Amino acid sequence: MTTLKVAVIPGDGIGWEVVPEGLKVLEAVGRKHGLDYAFTEYDWGCERFHKTGRLMPEDGLERLKESDAIFLGAVGFPGVPDHVSLWGLLIPIRREMHQYVNLRPVRMMKGMKCPLANRGPEDIDFWVIRENNEGEYSEIGGRLNRGTDREMAIQETVMTRHGTDRIMRYAFDLCRRVGKQKVTSATKSNGIIHTMPFWDERFEAIAAEYPDLKTDKYHIDILTAHFVLHPDWFDVVVGSNLFGDILSDLGPAVAGSIGIAPSANINPEGDYPSMFEPVHGSAPDIAGKGIANPIGQIWSGAMMLEHLGHQAAADDIVKAIETVLEGAGPKTPDIGGQATTKDLGDAIVEAL
Amino acid sequence: MTTLKVAVIPGDGIGWEVVPEGLKVLEAVGRKHGLDYAFTEYDWGCERFHKTGRLMPEDGLERLKESDAIFLGAVGFPGVPDHVSLWGLLIPIRREMHQYVNLRPVRMMKGMKCPLANRGPEDIDFWVIRENNEGEYSEIGGRLNRGTDREMAIQETVMTRHGTDRIMRYAFDLCRRVGKQKVTSATKSNGIIHTMPFWDERFEAIAAEYPDLKTDKYHIDILTAHFVLHPDWFDVVVGSNLFGDILSDLGPAVAGSIGIAPSANINPEGDYPSMFEPVHGSAPDIAGKGIANPIGQIWSGAMMLEHLGHQAAADDIVKAIETVLEGAGPKTPDIGGQATTKDLGDAIVEAL
Ligand SMILES: CC(C)[C@H](C(=O)O)[C@@H](O)C(=O)O
Ligand SMILES: CC(C)[C@H](C(=O)O)[C@@H](O)C(=O)O
Repeated sequence: MTTLKVAVIPGDGIGWEVVPEGLKVLEAVGRKHGLDYAFTEYDWGCERFHKTGRLMPEDGLERLKESDAIFLGAVGFPGVPDHVSLWGLLIPIRREMHQYVNLRPVRMMKGMKCPLANRGPEDIDFWVIRENNEGEYSEIGGRLNRGTDREMAIQETVMTRHGTDRIMRYAFDLCRRVGKQKVTSATKSNGIIHTMPFWDERFEAIAAEYPDLKTDKYHIDILTAHFVLHPDWFDVVVGSNLFGDILSDLGPAVAGSIGIAPSANINPEGDYPSMFEPVHGSAPDIAGKGIANPIGQIWSGAMMLEHLGHQAAADDIVKAIETVLEGAGPKTPDIGGQATTKDLGDAIVEAL
Repeated sequence: MTTLKVAVIPGDGIGWEVVPEGLKVLEAVGRKHGLDYAFTEYDWGCERFHKTGRLMPEDGLERLKESDAIFLGAVGFPGVPDHVSLWGLLIPIRREMHQYVNLRPVRMMKGMKCPLANRGPEDIDFWVIRENNEGEYSEIGGRLNRGTDREMAIQETVMTRHGTDRIMRYAFDLCRRVGKQKVTSATKSNGIIHTMPFWDERFEAIAAEYPDLKTDKYHIDILTAHFVLHPDWFDVVVGSNLFGDILSDLGPAVAGSIGIAPSANINPEGDYPSMFEPVHGSAPDIAGKGIANPIGQIWSGAMMLEHLGHQAAADDIVKAIETVLEGAGPKTPDIGGQATTKDLGDAIVEAL
C-alpha cells in the first residue's frame, strides 16, 4: 500500500462542492489500485480572508511543502478583488513551489459536444504547456504620473534562458513520454517583441537535443486561428506564460471541454509539490446550488495520480469519466442534464 | 467628380496579383458613383531591398503623405528576414502616420464556410479594434548576457493615457456609427500584468462618455474561448496591440473568412493617410501562379472608400463580393473552385 500525502484546498465557491467528488473518486480508484491517501484539508480562501485578513496563514506555504501534491478547487470570490485572492494563494504557490509548468490536455472527450463542425474526438487530442513562472507575468512594472493626462503604465516581460530552456525541455520530454511526434512553439518573432526571437533561438537549441521529434512554430495570432481551423495539426504546444494562458483556454473551448478541463501546475524536479486544479474557477453564480460539474476536479485528480507515477489508476479515472459522458447516466445542467454534482460523482465512482 | 489620390504598394508575392484586381474593382465602382482616382504605384518591397538595400526610398514616407490613402498588398518574402521587411515598410508607415487604429471586420460572408457547427452569417458580425502604435509592441527592450547561461530578454509594454483613451474613443464612436450596441474590452487585469488594471480604468472612464452604449470586459484567455463558443455575443471588441492582434486573426478564422479578410490602419484625425491591406500576407507558396484569392484586397478597397466617406460605393463592393460567393460564379482554389485571381476579380466587377 502506497500512501499519498495530499494537501486539499477547496478554496472558494463551487470548489467546496466539486472537491469532495474528486476525493471520492480518488478513494475509489485507490481501492482498486492499492493506493492509500493522507488528506489534509485547509480552509484557505476568501472567507478566511474576510475573517483574518489573509487567504492562508503565514506558514501556509511551509505546511504545503510537506505534502506530495496539492489538490485545489478554485480561488476567488466576489467581495475580494481578484489580485488580492490570486496573490494571496494561487500565485504564491505556483511561484514559490517553482511550479514552472502549467499543463493542460486539450482533448475532445467522447460524449461531449464540440463547437466545431465535423470534428470528432480523433481530431482533437493534444497538450498545451505554459511557462508558469516568468515571462509576461513578471512582477516588474507600475505607473507613472498617476491621475494626470501624462499617466502611463508599464509592464516588463522577462524571459531567461534558465526559465525558457526548462519549459521547452519539459515539452519535448512530455512529447516523447506520451508517444506524440511534434512540438509546436507559440511565438511572435516577426517584428517587434524583443523577447520572441530569443524564445525562437532557445526553441531551436533545445529541439536539437531531441532529433527524433518534429517541430514547428506559428505566430500567436495565426496559431489561435489554426486551433480553430486545424486542431488536428497539434501534438504538444509550448508557449510563454501569456501565450500559454490564452492557448490553454482556447484549446479546451475548441475541444468542447472548457467546463470540465483539468490543469496541472508542475514542479518537474519534485523538490516541491505540484498542484492540480480544474480550469473553471469558483463560479459564484451557481455556487451553493449543488449543480456544479465535478468532472474538471475529478480529471485533475487523474492528472495528480499520473504525476505521482500511478498511470493505470489515472487512466481508469479518465475512462470512467468517458463512460459516464457517453452513457445515459446523470448529467449536470451545463452538459444538458438535471443531475446534481453528487449524482455525477457517484456515477463516475460506479463506472470505476 | 471627386478624385481620390491613392498610393498603391503591391509589395511582395501575391500582392502583385491581387492589387490589380482591387484597383479594377475600385475603378468599376467609381464609374457608378462618380469617383475618380489618381493612383501612384510604388514598387517597394523585398525585391527592391535585394537591389538597393532598402524596401522603400529614404523619402518614402514623405511621398506617401501626399496621398489620401494607401492601398497595400502584402509585405515580406523568403530571403528577407521578417523583422527587416516589416521594419523597412509596414511598421514605419503604421507608426509614423499615426495609424493608431487597426480595424478588422469579423463577418461571416454569405457563401463562405464557417468552421463552427450550426452558425450562420447572422451570428457572426462584429468589429475588432486593435491599438496599433504602442502597448506590448513598444520598441523598448533587448538582451542581457547574450550567449551565456544567464542570458535574458526583456520587452517593455508601455500604455499611455493618450494612446489608450484615443483607441477606446474610436471604438465607442465606431459602435455608434455602425449602429451597434456594445463595446467589449479585452483585458487581463486579474492578477499580475501592471498595465491591465490601467487599461480597465481608462475603459471605464471613456465608457462614461457614452452612456447610450453598453459595455463588458473579459480576460483575454476566456475571451478567445468566447469567440469560438459565443461569437454572437460581440458588437465591437477593443484590445491592446497584442490582444487586438490575436483577436483580429482569431475572429476571421471563426467567421471562416481568414483568407479573405481585409484590414484598415487608420489615422482618424486625417493628418496622415490611412492604409488598407488584406490580412493574408504575401503567400510565397502560391505567388506567381495567378490563383490567389483577391477578395481580401477588394474588400480592403471597400474599407478605403468607406473611410474616405463613400459609404454607398463601399457597400456596393461588399454586396458584389457576396453575390459572387453565393452564386455559381468562379471560385479560386482556396474556396473550393478552380478559377484564377483574374476570373474572380472579373466576376466581382460584373456583379457591380
Ligand atoms: C506582420 C506583423 C508585424 C503584423 C503585426 O503583428 O502587427 C501582423 O500580424 C498584422 O496583424 O498585421
Ligand atoms: C487566475 C489567473 C491568475 C490565471 C492566470 O492568468 O494564470 C488563470 O487565467 C489561469 O489560467 O490559471
